[in-house]
Amino acid sequence: MPPNNTVSENGGDNLSLVLYKAGDMRLEQTPLPSKPARNEVLLQTQQVGICGSDVSYWVKGHIGGFWVKDPMILGHETSAKVVEVGEGVTHLKPGDRVAIEPGVPCRYCVDCKEGAYNLCSGIFFSATPPDNGTLTRYFKHAADYCFKLPDHVSYAEGALMEPLSVAIHACSRANVSGGQKILILGAGPIGLMCILVAKAYGATDICITDINAERLALAKKIGATSTFLLSKDLGENETAEAIEKLMGCRPEAVLECSGASPSIRLALIVCKSGGCVVLIGMGADEVQVPLLSAVCREVDIRGVFRYKNSYPKAVNLISSGKIDVKPIISHYFKLEQAHDAFELARSGKAVKIIIDCSLD
Amino acid sequence: MPPNNTVSENGGDNLSLVLYKAGDMRLEQTPLPSKPARNEVLLQTQQVGICGSDVSYWVKGHIGGFWVKDPMILGHETSAKVVEVGEGVTHLKPGDRVAIEPGVPCRYCVDCKEGAYNLCSGIFFSATPPDNGTLTRYFKHAADYCFKLPDHVSYAEGALMEPLSVAIHACSRANVSGGQKILILGAGPIGLMCILVAKAYGATDICITDINAERLALAKKIGATSTFLLSKDLGENETAEAIEKLMGCRPEAVLECSGASPSIRLALIVCKSGGCVVLIGMGADEVQVPLLSAVCREVDIRGVFRYKNSYPKAVNLISSGKIDVKPIISHYFKLEQAHDAFELARSGKAVKIIIDCSLD
Amino acid sequence: MPPNNTVSENGGDNLSLVLYKAGDMRLEQTPLPSKPARNEVLLQTQQVGICGSDVSYWVKGHIGGFWVKDPMILGHETSAKVVEVGEGVTHLKPGDRVAIEPGVPCRYCVDCKEGAYNLCSGIFFSATPPDNGTLTRYFKHAADYCFKLPDHVSYAEGALMEPLSVAIHACSRANVSGGQKILILGAGPIGLMCILVAKAYGATDICITDINAERLALAKKIGATSTFLLSKDLGENETAEAIEKLMGCRPEAVLECSGASPSIRLALIVCKSGGCVVLIGMGADEVQVPLLSAVCREVDIRGVFRYKNSYPKAVNLISSGKIDVKPIISHYFKLEQAHDAFELARSGKAVKIIIDCSLD
Amino acid sequence: MPPNNTVSENGGDNLSLVLYKAGDMRLEQTPLPSKPARNEVLLQTQQVGICGSDVSYWVKGHIGGFWVKDPMILGHETSAKVVEVGEGVTHLKPGDRVAIEPGVPCRYCVDCKEGAYNLCSGIFFSATPPDNGTLTRYFKHAADYCFKLPDHVSYAEGALMEPLSVAIHACSRANVSGGQKILILGAGPIGLMCILVAKAYGATDICITDINAERLALAKKIGATSTFLLSKDLGENETAEAIEKLMGCRPEAVLECSGASPSIRLALIVCKSGGCVVLIGMGADEVQVPLLSAVCREVDIRGVFRYKNSYPKAVNLISSGKIDVKPIISHYFKLEQAHDAFELARSGKAVKIIIDCSLD
Repeated sequence: MPPNNTVSENGGDNLSLVLYKAGDMRLEQTPLPSKPARNEVLLQTQQVGICGSDVSYWVKGHIGGFWVKDPMILGHETSAKVVEVGEGVTHLKPGDRVAIEPGVPCRYCVDCKEGAYNLCSGIFFSATPPDNGTLTRYFKHAADYCFKLPDHVSYAEGALMEPLSVAIHACSRANVSGGQKILILGAGPIGLMCILVAKAYGATDICITDINAERLALAKKIGATSTFLLSKDLGENETAEAIEKLMGCRPEAVLECSGASPSIRLALIVCKSGGCVVLIGMGADEVQVPLLSAVCREVDIRGVFRYKNSYPKAVNLISSGKIDVKPIISHYFKLEQAHDAFELARSGKAVKIIIDCSLD
Repeated sequence: MPPNNTVSENGGDNLSLVLYKAGDMRLEQTPLPSKPARNEVLLQTQQVGICGSDVSYWVKGHIGGFWVKDPMILGHETSAKVVEVGEGVTHLKPGDRVAIEPGVPCRYCVDCKEGAYNLCSGIFFSATPPDNGTLTRYFKHAADYCFKLPDHVSYAEGALMEPLSVAIHACSRANVSGGQKILILGAGPIGLMCILVAKAYGATDICITDINAERLALAKKIGATSTFLLSKDLGENETAEAIEKLMGCRPEAVLECSGASPSIRLALIVCKSGGCVVLIGMGADEVQVPLLSAVCREVDIRGVFRYKNSYPKAVNLISSGKIDVKPIISHYFKLEQAHDAFELARSGKAVKIIIDCSLD
Repeated sequence: MPPNNTVSENGGDNLSLVLYKAGDMRLEQTPLPSKPARNEVLLQTQQVGICGSDVSYWVKGHIGGFWVKDPMILGHETSAKVVEVGEGVTHLKPGDRVAIEPGVPCRYCVDCKEGAYNLCSGIFFSATPPDNGTLTRYFKHAADYCFKLPDHVSYAEGALMEPLSVAIHACSRANVSGGQKILILGAGPIGLMCILVAKAYGATDICITDINAERLALAKKIGATSTFLLSKDLGENETAEAIEKLMGCRPEAVLECSGASPSIRLALIVCKSGGCVVLIGMGADEVQVPLLSAVCREVDIRGVFRYKNSYPKAVNLISSGKIDVKPIISHYFKLEQAHDAFELARSGKAVKIIIDCSLD
Repeated sequence: MPPNNTVSENGGDNLSLVLYKAGDMRLEQTPLPSKPARNEVLLQTQQVGICGSDVSYWVKGHIGGFWVKDPMILGHETSAKVVEVGEGVTHLKPGDRVAIEPGVPCRYCVDCKEGAYNLCSGIFFSATPPDNGTLTRYFKHAADYCFKLPDHVSYAEGALMEPLSVAIHACSRANVSGGQKILILGAGPIGLMCILVAKAYGATDICITDINAERLALAKKIGATSTFLLSKDLGENETAEAIEKLMGCRPEAVLECSGASPSIRLALIVCKSGGCVVLIGMGADEVQVPLLSAVCREVDIRGVFRYKNSYPKAVNLISSGKIDVKPIISHYFKLEQAHDAFELARSGKAVKIIIDCSLD
């Protein structure tokens, strides 16, 4: 039975998690995708991680400047099984297990030609309005943005290639390298992924901060060499001094993963002269920062928007065993339980939640 | 008569412009320097440019976090004549005409070893408290921070190697290169120097903004390809749109030379995705910035603190005729007229003022 | 009469210069191109420069590892007029005057995604076997590789965007920047283009070598600051010393444009410690080089293969007047005179020959 | 008893291994060093690794272009104990255990100011003629080139900071980073160090070649993911194909550590388009290389000469346990047995030999 029959013979099930507007998320059937075009593949979703942006769309109807206007399927941290390949696709075949890079750029603009395709204004990106995501049974995707998984890499790991790619791009923007001393602010899933990458890249001191002691304990377990519990009783300069004392020096790079304004300020204050602060967390539109001190110490401030050319590295790092993302997964749900999964995600009590979309 | 006799036989004249505290600047005799040690040279000051920092020390007693606590000789944009060379100095001899790089780093710290000597915390820097400057008759300096001037380069040009070096370092931090479209904010001496460097480096579109139409006229004369008169009637987004329209696109690099908070905001708003904003002007300690938009467009923010390894390029660029700094000089004074010169500088009516410290 | 009628109503003229094999080049009619597909444009060729590779294909049947196996239209330094645009093309319209970037990459491989599309193994490249070139009346091309020319830029200048792009990429690989001292080896068209770019980028010393005094005279005229006539009477070390003496120091970057083995050796010998040698000329498969000395002085050796993302800069540099390529053009021919043009090119007596393919 | 008394009270023992000329190496007393000057420390040698250059000086009287002309103490891979500190030294005190960076540059030249102090022509370098090395009881060194060892790092590890620094600099030149596929040619001590660094930096595939199966076995043990035994029966292209097959792709970076000409050729042939070949091994003055293919694939060739700013990273990497250099040590000798140690080193049967110079 050819795999594409799976679609027609599954009785037409294409259960999807559709967000209509803030607060209105529905599990409902959506049309099955048509046959894949040239360079496309038809995929059967396997596992999807819930990202903070999915929750933000559901709760607030937007994240940063991206607003949900029309019904949109959520989900973009995805692994899948290849059902059918379109013309010209040679590196994949039905049955292959793949990780999905959710952004497919236009390939024609200057940013694409320069390799900065994450900045392409014409990019399709799963679950960024108005583009549909992957919390569904079947979807189509550009074949060259599907990365084959070795047998020993699980679908859950495949789904987590996405947040891992964010951390890989962040560490690349920060030039994280062997022997360095790195500070990570915020021990949510992205902060934890940054620990894994910084550790794999040879950083010898990795300090992480958070306001939640449990998260710090997990951070320590997966590779942080020191942790610092933020407290409102301590001013920003005192906090910076305490971190410097804890690390034995100022960090060469600070990866800000919380988006919180006080944390952004702390990043600028504590960073070593000539170092860099990489902003990964999406926070407030406007932030008041101690800019003059950063300027006079030539501390660079660099933003991170998604990633580019990071998936091949992510696959290498996980499949080689250099990075183990599994400890970051705290909960599993079936697609049918998506509302429960999102409620839990909203509560802040989970770390990384995986939704199983497979039919099995 | 050996040149070093000049010092002993000049009757002991070492007239210097000493700042005692904010508002208290005195022309008075200071001790003649002793003989140059190993790798030092004794110099007779020729021409010194007045920098905004000199004026700020005089008017406010500080610039940024640098405060005048004890009497300090002002001036650090300097050309001089070699009077005597210390042991081990081979590239200079008495009578040589030189430009003075005012910062002499410790040579032993990690920043120095890595070539980032502008970040050395032990650096001596003329007219940064507590180090004396060069508005004096004679001073000593590290020989390797004295750069020989060809005969056809004037002492005034030699003095302006210093602000030119700031612009060279800024353009280096911004990766300014041929065919680019650059926006410069602020048409003071540093903004004008940035025009000269960006033009020499092949930037094909150089737009500059200011609130002063006269300064923009001078900017146009020396190489700006377009100018934009800032107006309070226009909001920041409208201003950004107007500049984008004027330039035909968003700039790849923005060189912020004013230090004004609205200008820093404008820089972040108008810069192209993936571009960079270089902050050169020293402004307020704290600035509220639209950070999220910059992060999501991966617009880098980089500070500039003085310069490093820029003097050799500055000398090459001026002596080759690639850059002509003379149109930036608006007034000349003698050292004896220093108070008048500083009053004019404070008024904002001059562009670059040169003080002649020579004995002739 | 709509411009696309030009094709059908021109009586079917599609005169083309077809290379059958080494030594067998024929002017003959080839089929008129079909209508442009999505993102394509139909173009009427205007001016085409003859490149050394065209001559090499004709004389030797190959250049480097690229061999002519089937009949192929020559020519790839091209300007054209837009006749018809395909679906989705918005930045061009019939009648527009354009410069053609001859390489259109696959857009799907890792090199393309990383912005290194010049290394794409699936690239279409005009007049590289088996892809047809532009010495014809009409051809189709990817719209995003057609760059609109301002009215004041001539079609001949448009054709020379191609060799200029090689020089732009070479100077980018060499990090040529303001105030530098650059050595260029070989004063053929690419060497001359390198002078223009290095000069526009602010290099203050540009020395060029050749075995032909006439070429050096032209080099001097367009911007070389010094020239060195190579002589077989001088050994390589003596030549290096003479060049160092002439330039006042060793060059920070050496652009090798001749492909001649002795010149490659000279490049390595004369380059400053920590500098770089960029190899642009395509020479012998195998070269014996004094490698140990280069290694011990950390002289980098970097190859140049075509260019990437250089056309926008080339258009900016020419249209702004920063670069004037016209003095490099020595001869003009009509397409009907192509054999004469190639004979002249082969003789080595011309600099840059332009073939006019227009119907007017 | 103050530590400096150790020197005067040890009865004047300053046993040293002095090379008089090729083949003439003598264990003899040399004068005890005088008191340390400003920024100097007096050191008691602990452990010294034998480097290939030491053996080359002894056997051939030179390595590359460096020739022994006058008697010179050998040894430059050194750990030591601080005996006395000169004026101005604050980060060390008597009794401190340190690793010695053997090169102390002039601090005044352009290379030093730019941070490329390994290229400084005025550098002092232990056991590079005419500078004395450290196979002695006592010596003085610049304090800022002595790096304090934590208690849990042994003196043997301290000595191996030196070859580790070579590998760190090589990996930096090659931009080795996480997820990459790296090929190392030559499994001598430097090749083995390169494995350790590439592994610590996150390279996921590390293939190494050698002609010696035993060395490959050790390489595998310390982190190579695959090994390839070179054979004369296989041509260079076949070897390259076999390695590509073994690795699953061409390597992004090739670290050539053997200096053998066939190995240099192999590096250029096998490297991925756009990748880089870093030459670390010091081989023949002249090498015939397949340059055209490297140029057309933009494969960079970069030399490595010693290292710069690598010691702090080396200390971090070893003390954090990221890198374990101990398996590379094959033999220990006392200074009195230096001739036996060098005989063994010459035989090629050892990996890394450590000579204990302590008095205990």
